[in-house]
This record gives sequence, C-alpha cells and structure tokens, in this order.
Amino acid sequence: MRNEEIPNPAVYRLSFYLRQLESFHRGDRHTISSKQLGEALGYSDAQVRKDLAYFGQFGHPGIGYRVDELIHQLKKILGTDKISHVLLVGAGNLGRALLAYKGFVHKGFKIVAIFDADATKVGRKIGDLLVRSDQDIASVVAELQIRVAMLAVPVQAAQAVADQLLAVGIKGILNFAPIALNVPGDVVVQSVDLALQLEQLSFRMTLGDSSPGDESSL
Amino acid sequence: MRNEEIPNPAVYRLSFYLRQLESFHRGDRHTISSKQLGEALGYSDAQVRKDLAYFGQFGHPGIGYRVDELIHQLKKILGTDKISHVLLVGAGNLGRALLAYKGFVHKGFKIVAIFDADATKVGRKIGDLLVRSDQDIASVVAELQIRVAMLAVPVQAAQAVADQLLAVGIKGILNFAPIALNVPGDVVVQSVDLALQLEQLSFRMTLGDSSPGDESSL
Repeated sequence: MRNEEIPNPAVYRLSFYLRQLESFHRGDRHTISSKQLGEALGYSDAQVRKDLAYFGQFGHPGIGYRVDELIHQLKKILGTDKISHVLLVGAGNLGRALLAYKGFVHKGFKIVAIFDADATKVGRKIGDLLVRSDQDIASVVAELQIRVAMLAVPVQAAQAVADQLLAVGIKGILNFAPIALNVPGDVVVQSVDLALQLEQLSFRMTLGDSSPGDESSL
Repeated sequence: MRNEEIPNPAVYRLSFYLRQLESFHRGDRHTISSKQLGEALGYSDAQVRKDLAYFGQFGHPGIGYRVDELIHQLKKILGTDKISHVLLVGAGNLGRALLAYKGFVHKGFKIVAIFDADATKVGRKIGDLLVRSDQDIASVVAELQIRVAMLAVPVQAAQAVADQLLAVGIKGILNFAPIALNVPGDVVVQSVDLALQLEQLSFRMTLGDSSPGDESSL
C-alpha cells in the first residue's frame, strides 16, 4: 500500500465510514451493504467499494460487510486500533479546549502531557495533568515514548517549538498555528487552519451549496 | 458557476493559493507564473491553471498573474472580500480560543457577539465582548444582520443550538461539535472534527507519508 496511489479524499472518507459504522454498531446492526453505507453518508455504492478496495477485500458475497469486522479493519488501517500517547504544547485557551475535548480518547488518542514556555502556567493543573515546562519535553518524550504532538502555541512560536519537538524524535504534529511548518521528509504535519474553514464556509454560502454538513467535514 | 462542477479539493486549494499570494504580496512580488505559484505549494503548473480556470480567466499573456489582482479575485470568489459579522455560541475554552484566534479578522471575519446558555458565564467580558444569554440570539442576529455562526458547544447541545440558530435565519454554521448536524438544504455546515484530524495524522504516519505539511492542511 503506497500513499501516492490513494487519493487524500478517500482517506478522509475512511474516517467517515468508520464513524458511520460505529453508529450502525451502536444500533445493533451486524451487516451492511456498500449501498446502505453509502446512502447513510450521501455517497454512491460504487464510491464506497472503490474507496475500500484501496485497502483490501472486506466484503463477503451475499452478506456485504460485517460491521464489527470492518470497524476493526478500518481502525487498523488508520492506526487507531491501539491507544496512542500524545503530548500537547500550549496551555492557553486552545490547549485547554483540546484537553477537554471528549472525542480524542474514543478515537485512540490520549493526551498524556502538556507543556508551556510560560513560567506562570507551569505547575498549574488542567484536568488530570500538571502543566510542565517546555524544558522537560525531551525527558517526557523519552520516558513515555511519545511520537505525536499537538501544537497549540502562538504563530510566532510555532516553528521554534516544532524544531524542538523534531529534535527529540516527534514524528507527527497536529498543528493549530496558522503557519506552514518546515519539517523533514520523515515527519508528518496535519494542519488545522480555522480561518480556512470559515473561508470555505463562506465560499459554499456564496455558491448556495446544499450538500449535507457531514460531507464537508474536514 | 455551479458547485457540482467544482471539485471540493480545488476549492481548498483556492484558499492555499490565496495564502501563498498574500505571502508573495508581503514580499513585494508583483507578478507570478502558474509554475512559480505551484512550486511554492508543491502543485504542478497544470494543476494551478486547471484550478483557477474553474473560476475565470485571470492570467495575462507574457506576464502571468498580477499578484494583487489575483488576491482580489480569489477573495471575491471565496466571499471574503468584505468583512462578515459572525456570532459565536459557547463561551467555554474553545469559544475563548476562537475569540482570541488572530487569523479570522485578516480573512474577513469578525466575531461580533458571543452567547452562552450558562447563566454564570453571561455578563462576563471576554476580550472586547460581553457574553450574552442565548435568549438574546434572535434580537442580536436581527440587529446586526448576522448570517454566519460558530458553534462551540458540547456535543449534547449542538443540534438544539443549531435549530435555534436556523430559526432566526442563520445560513452558515462552522461546527466544532463532533456530530453531523441536521439542517435544511439552504443552510451550509462546515464541520471541524478534531479527532478526525488526529486520525488522519495517524494514518499518514502509519504510511510513512512524506508530503509537506501545508499540502495536507484542512
């Protein structure tokens, strides 16, 4: 499975399939056809089959997909079948919002440490976690074997903090600062640009778009 | 220009073109070729020309694109050439983070009112704004002619608040709750699912993806 062969939107749809399957699972549904899965999300059954075919053979003739089996497979593909430890840099409003966000643990991510450069924030407790000095990043990453970080720092500090994270072996960054980070080729950055989201909303309102909300979730 | 004809990823790339052009503009660059614009973002020149062609004819033979002209055109297309008033529901950590976010005003969005259902938060000042009771939404929307709302409320409250917003004429919602909102066809929802972002990061790390960070910003 090579990344170049799989279109990015297909990978996003994978996340939507997973959510929908989990919803079916909660509703005690055991099997599902590509048509039913597609209909629930507004995609054609051909689209569903094509997307899933990038990653393997999951259907059973005459049955369709087994819901729990496909959930398990998709989680494995997405790498969220195990709990991953994540560190968070930035104990401001956004950092606190991320810590309070309910969705992460359910998706296999646990924030296990939070850091801030601001000495007045260090030592404060947020939820179950004590804010630590950014000087401690190296030792914590080594001790807890963390590979993923969330960056919720001001835009001016983002590249310097990213460099600090890369130096201690972080390989994936979820970046909330509105800046394109410079990272080496073996490091993955996923950026969440909130203004861009609003810009896209504005565009779709201008057009009079009428697609359902979950189709345009990003 | 009909929405069905324009692929969603092209609209996202429009936002990236705009950011890159603004960066060129700050660097006192006056004209740019599709090749140069593409190279700065990791796209081919053919891709750039194809994306822009969905929206009109912007290039000048022998010159390429005029940077300020193309910025103006793209903002017009995205509907961000004027300042839009936005309301925010939810004065928790995420709401406060959104209020403090520097990127919105620059992109043509101004949060002009913030609401919360929690009486203990109503009347508090956050930045320049006083938190208002959600009972006041209708009167404020009417007075300030607001059409766009950000939803930063707990997932259990999201649909009820969305219904409340729709009832007073809101036509676009930037939704941060991890739930697909049910809205009528003339309303646009853009959802920001933070766990999904982390899931996608995880997937790309599993694959050993090495594309630059800004290409995968969403």
